[in-house]
Amino acid sequence: MSPIPSRQPGSWSWSVRVACSALATTFADTPEPPYVAVIFTSTRTEGDNGYVAMAESMNELASKQPGFLGVESARDDIGITVSYWVDQAAAQAWKEVAAHCLAQRKGREIWYQDYRVRIATVDRDYSMNSSLFPAQQGTAIPRNATDGDGRCQ
Amino acid sequence: MSPIPSRQPGSWSWSVRVACSALATTFADTPEPPYVAVIFTSTRTEGDNGYVAMAESMNELASKQPGFLGVESARDDIGITVSYWVDQAAAQAWKEVAAHCLAQRKGREIWYQDYRVRIATVDRDYSMNSSLFPAQQGTAIPRNATDGDGRCQ
Repeated sequence: MSPIPSRQPGSWSWSVRVACSALATTFADTPEPPYVAVIFTSTRTEGDNGYVAMAESMNELASKQPGFLGVESARDDIGITVSYWVDQAAAQAWKEVAAHCLAQRKGREIWYQDYRVRIATVDRDYSMNSSLFPAQQGTAIPRNATDGDGRCQ
Repeated sequence: MSPIPSRQPGSWSWSVRVACSALATTFADTPEPPYVAVIFTSTRTEGDNGYVAMAESMNELASKQPGFLGVESARDDIGITVSYWVDQAAAQAWKEVAAHCLAQRKGREIWYQDYRVRIATVDRDYSMNSSLFPAQQGTAIPRNATDGDGRCQ
């Protein structure tokens, strides 16, 4: 793998950890909104059947796409992969590449029982460590939070 | 638990499976866009420390909120929970409730190493079984998909 530049705050370059990890295990290092999130939710069929290799290859391919910002992924009963893009055009371009790869294998119907894809525009974001999302500092827990009623005990 | 009406196509009522499962293990039964997605990505601390009980309680609380559409959740190295809402106001109202519950426990800093929250407007969606998302029928694999270059083998 060729050297990957570390991300500079505010730049579009992707994070080293995401780019070097085919199956993302950390947060995407997204810039300030707006940007685009593609939420891919799926249920798997039994067995691997080449799925992990395909997923690694697709994530690597995504990381090389123009406008790619990062990806977050988790799976237990269902799988959720959220990829982030600079804009709708970048997400759409990836969809066409990804859809073609998927189409090549769709006839086999080996990987997914079902899936959903949702394309969304991120308007706001914040984090536990607000320094990572300075524009939204302090919004994670608003000072005027409503009084609780005990139901979330 | 009181009886929960089954979801009628196009209605805002939440799905039986989501409402009855504190830790959602299936797809959210969302209506046609636009609607709002709150993407909550987190890394956990070691041990349960009451986390599962809190998560169940929070999901139950969310399902009772006005404008709740459903939730999808998965966790391995990171956790991703996406809750869906009719609009930004409904998501914001939930945030204030959820933030308050979180605030009560934040001092203990027992559950999360870190988290991200992204509030997004879903503009388009589609599924493998297009009948579930009739407005987007056929868009999952566009006919004019670009030619592949073998990188997704």
